Amino acid sequence: MQKIRTDLAIEAHEMCSKEKAEKNHLDGIDVEEYKNGDVFITRITVTNEKGSEILGKPKGNYITLEIPNLKYSDEAYQSACQEIAKQLETLIKITDKTKTLVVGLGNKAITSDALGPKAVSNLVVTNHIKQGNDFLGDSFSRVCAIVPGVLGTTGIETIDIIKGVVEKTKPEIVIAIDALASRSMDRISNTVQISDTGINPGSGVENRREGINEAALGIKVIAIGVPTVVDAATVASDSIDAVLANTNERIKELGRDKIYSLLAKSVGNMMVTPKDIDSVIEKASKTVANGINLALHKDLTLSEIESYISY
Amino acid sequence: MQKIRTDLAIEAHEMCSKEKAEKNHLDGIDVEEYKNGDVFITRITVTNEKGSEILGKPKGNYITLEIPNLKYSDEAYQSACQEIAKQLETLIKITDKTKTLVVGLGNKAITSDALGPKAVSNLVVTNHIKQGNDFLGDSFSRVCAIVPGVLGTTGIETIDIIKGVVEKTKPEIVIAIDALASRSMDRISNTVQISDTGINPGSGVENRREGINEAALGIKVIAIGVPTVVDAATVASDSIDAVLANTNERIKELGRDKIYSLLAKSVGNMMVTPKDIDSVIEKASKTVANGINLALHKDLTLSEIESYISY
Amino acid sequence: MQKIRTDLAIEAHEMCSKEKAEKNHLDGIDVEEYKNGDVFITRITVTNEKGSEILGKPKGNYITLEIPNLKYSDEAYQSACQEIAKQLETLIKITDKTKTLVVGLGNKAITSDALGPKAVSNLVVTNHIKQGNDFLGDSFSRVCAIVPGVLGTTGIETIDIIKGVVEKTKPEIVIAIDALASRSMDRISNTVQISDTGINPGSGVENRREGINEAALGIKVIAIGVPTVVDAATVASDSIDAVLANTNERIKELGRDKIYSLLAKSVGNMMVTPKDIDSVIEKASKTVANGINLALHKDLTLSEIESYISY
Amino acid sequence: MQKIRTDLAIEAHEMCSKEKAEKNHLDGIDVEEYKNGDVFITRITVTNEKGSEILGKPKGNYITLEIPNLKYSDEAYQSACQEIAKQLETLIKITDKTKTLVVGLGNKAITSDALGPKAVSNLVVTNHIKQGNDFLGDSFSRVCAIVPGVLGTTGIETIDIIKGVVEKTKPEIVIAIDALASRSMDRISNTVQISDTGINPGSGVENRREGINEAALGIKVIAIGVPTVVDAATVASDSIDAVLANTNERIKELGRDKIYSLLAKSVGNMMVTPKDIDSVIEKASKTVANGINLALHKDLTLSEIESYISY
Repeated sequence: MQKIRTDLAIEAHEMCSKEKAEKNHLDGIDVEEYKNGDVFITRITVTNEKGSEILGKPKGNYITLEIPNLKYSDEAYQSACQEIAKQLETLIKITDKTKTLVVGLGNKAITSDALGPKAVSNLVVTNHIKQGNDFLGDSFSRVCAIVPGVLGTTGIETIDIIKGVVEKTKPEIVIAIDALASRSMDRISNTVQISDTGINPGSGVENRREGINEAALGIKVIAIGVPTVVDAATVASDSIDAVLANTNERIKELGRDKIYSLLAKSVGNMMVTPKDIDSVIEKASKTVANGINLALHKDLTLSEIESYISY
Repeated sequence: MQKIRTDLAIEAHEMCSKEKAEKNHLDGIDVEEYKNGDVFITRITVTNEKGSEILGKPKGNYITLEIPNLKYSDEAYQSACQEIAKQLETLIKITDKTKTLVVGLGNKAITSDALGPKAVSNLVVTNHIKQGNDFLGDSFSRVCAIVPGVLGTTGIETIDIIKGVVEKTKPEIVIAIDALASRSMDRISNTVQISDTGINPGSGVENRREGINEAALGIKVIAIGVPTVVDAATVASDSIDAVLANTNERIKELGRDKIYSLLAKSVGNMMVTPKDIDSVIEKASKTVANGINLALHKDLTLSEIESYISY
Repeated sequence: MQKIRTDLAIEAHEMCSKEKAEKNHLDGIDVEEYKNGDVFITRITVTNEKGSEILGKPKGNYITLEIPNLKYSDEAYQSACQEIAKQLETLIKITDKTKTLVVGLGNKAITSDALGPKAVSNLVVTNHIKQGNDFLGDSFSRVCAIVPGVLGTTGIETIDIIKGVVEKTKPEIVIAIDALASRSMDRISNTVQISDTGINPGSGVENRREGINEAALGIKVIAIGVPTVVDAATVASDSIDAVLANTNERIKELGRDKIYSLLAKSVGNMMVTPKDIDSVIEKASKTVANGINLALHKDLTLSEIESYISY
Repeated sequence: MQKIRTDLAIEAHEMCSKEKAEKNHLDGIDVEEYKNGDVFITRITVTNEKGSEILGKPKGNYITLEIPNLKYSDEAYQSACQEIAKQLETLIKITDKTKTLVVGLGNKAITSDALGPKAVSNLVVTNHIKQGNDFLGDSFSRVCAIVPGVLGTTGIETIDIIKGVVEKTKPEIVIAIDALASRSMDRISNTVQISDTGINPGSGVENRREGINEAALGIKVIAIGVPTVVDAATVASDSIDAVLANTNERIKELGRDKIYSLLAKSVGNMMVTPKDIDSVIEKASKTVANGINLALHKDLTLSEIESYISY
């Protein structure tokens, strides 16, 4: 049973292959790997129910782009944009008449979950212009976009908001963008997964009970995701492997310092924070500031002090 | 040798005590613990060089406030503000004539490091008003505040900026606010450390070569910090302890799934991200959006597309 | 014909009354004014078609709360919150079974238009909790909330998004929050209008072709708004009145400086900006920074420089 | 006497020229105009005290770049960056040894005043790297940068912070970036002024008592600004001119609607807001949300409700 959490088919496949020691030859799973300039492409196709069960993912195509230099090189960034477009075109057919609804999933107030909302704010949205006196011409297809929010802030299942909007706007395709969990820090920020299976229960940073997929919406759903977090248990579990790989001794007999220095090598650069770090910082900074305010302006009450602060 | 990273004297003390199995009786280290409503207070005083060496912290007072309900209860928040003020008054004497410079350390563009800058934005700053026709009266002391930035964005050692401003504004006290690293997820967001030793080399999320302390500035320096991150190696190291505590078997003989489920209990709720997650998300969301833009608006170049997007 | 732009019934009424010189006695318009602590309340009821035509607003109730000290006094803020609740209860009946959908209208990326989205982020949303194992109890009613975005960023008419979500979530009441245009700078930031007529074509910062009202949605729609902008033509027009009120001379014969100093008295404290100032500042600051970067790091190209900057 | 507020030498010059009806021939003021691709360049040199008095600006060079398409065209943006670099090089000599301190003036919490802080966040800062093991090489000069804040939030005169930092870091040049006030909406967002006279009392969105200039700092000070606001009195005054230019009648005899429609043509697209619109929106949205919260969750107090909201 696959327990370690990952939203990436490429990682699920690595784990299965390792267990079975027969990479690229799992029944019902085809794998193709190639390189295009700065971008490494892995295309995993789940062709039957057997493959689906092994991988823990529905039948369909899972394209992973790895761009190690994305953060550092403008060329790599440009190649990544081009390659995403090219791979999307292998999954969907777009003409200037096509109407697409892009859905930015996730919580924009939580940095690591804000990929979808932020991506939507960079889209060229055209549907309202093409409905009227279309001065944009044939280069542009019909694009609309929503940021539905998350269950915790809307009180509504995300799929219900999407269904409602799909019924009113009648797009031919939905593209859903979401932040993913990876099992490796190395993939964060430089890996893009594109899939034609949509988003399915149990995956994503926020679990969703019903999938955001063709079964639910009646139209093709493309999912695009980027890993932005690794869960701490995965890091810890990998760390134990790292320690074991570097010692023949009983782990209990290693000193704390020895263990720590082995670990520092494997995960030294990362930070662990609560998921709601953004709101935590708001509260903590207000608490500290008001403690200082009360000490420095002695005769004022907390509520008087708060009325002097504009935010 | 103390290697595990913590900025909290209370945690350094716990680790020393555990090793020495003689809590509260370390030479040169006095510990006082009490409770005031929602707030647990631990006052550690390092009284001589021996204590300083054991704890790895300079001589002085380290007051830790723990407020488990800070995030959930408005009362706890109000008690925390009051207690910070009260404890500050045990370390510094404030009259309405006192001039204090509050320094918000850290990088405001990195959420987990933004405590100092955000706290400064909640201060009641009065120095400029009290210099002129002071309509504020005796309830207010003279407060000024700066956010110096971090070496990576200013190119200047933070202590040099503070020294320059101290020389021009001549405060009697500096209060430096900074985000801290803790060794325990449980302390994040609900613990405040106040100290009269300033901020010293090797501590803080960003290492600083010269301390921000009385030796450097010639006036009293109070440090106030809140832990906002745990480094991943600490989490991993603690996780191994957690696993060992729950098993008598050789760790190698436990299955991966068994290890993972033991770990999930101890660290299940946390996320690991790179420290620069804010900028990582900007880049990744732009990449995904432009990939979609290029696919949906086929005849446009990347640079044409970017000119259509306002941000 | 009423052309000067205002979304406030109280202002529309002032203008009509002034023209007709018979305040509080317009046919089909009842006006009630009273004070409750820090809050001035004006309740305008449009009772028939005649009144609707005169005021340029549909039949219904328009409650205006004016809280001059909202920005400066914590007490005033608390009274304002209480009074809004009290007035809402005169328009809608809420039990713990009532399901309400709150809609935050406006563009969160434009500061002056972000009232709705920001208000929604401060709501206590409960619908998802009350659907399951309701640990909240009878003190809480069922609240869900969406931020639909604006036509320019979604490509979809806002009313269509709301209709879709209403059909899926079936609330009994919609409360729509929006930023308003006022004709007076004095009302900005301290006036709240509550109405049971919803939001109707031609009003609001963004014109909307179809109303967000009971006719469109089939359920009661409460609109709550706060004025955040005055359009520049209104300021200019009022300024001419201000000049004329202070002079008997032909305006042409006044010198420029005389006119300017008369105007400075009436509007001296305000700033005029383009509506998209947020994105304008992004672009301008990037341009200036890169100009400096190119001058200071001479041998680098613009694209090399951009790859060194994280955002 | 020049009263209408502008920080742009090009506008001050236009006003003087109009009064004197002799453009380009004012004593002590040389003007050169040319075009370079998308950029219009006007170089005004104030050569003697007479010119300085006429223009109301110190002796020195004032270079204005106008880039009408800055917002819409990526090419125009690139030309603007290049031209700023080129013009800076006519005022200062940069080698890879030169040490420059860039100062981002203004209040980052007020959108229209945030140009300086935002520009600094886009700089390639190198001083700390070049001080150590310089892996950057000769293409980079030594750049450091600070965001000093404004008097209202620091309690310290900005010039004192800059002086303190200059004394500690000893740069050869200061480049100060600031948001400017223009007298024309048309210049907002697409005009850049570069000057070698620094920033002088009475100019800028925030008045400063002492200049930020060579006299104060002892080293060359370059000022770069972009107009981001027009003050409302200027808009109103210009509007009266616009009305008068379109009518021969006594302005009093025009109806209100006629005046308004004339004005709508000249300033129709702009919005007037208070300068602190960012904090105004925070407060107003919290007030509205809590009013709704109190109405929908009837048995809760305001303070209980606030404890349920994370921010």
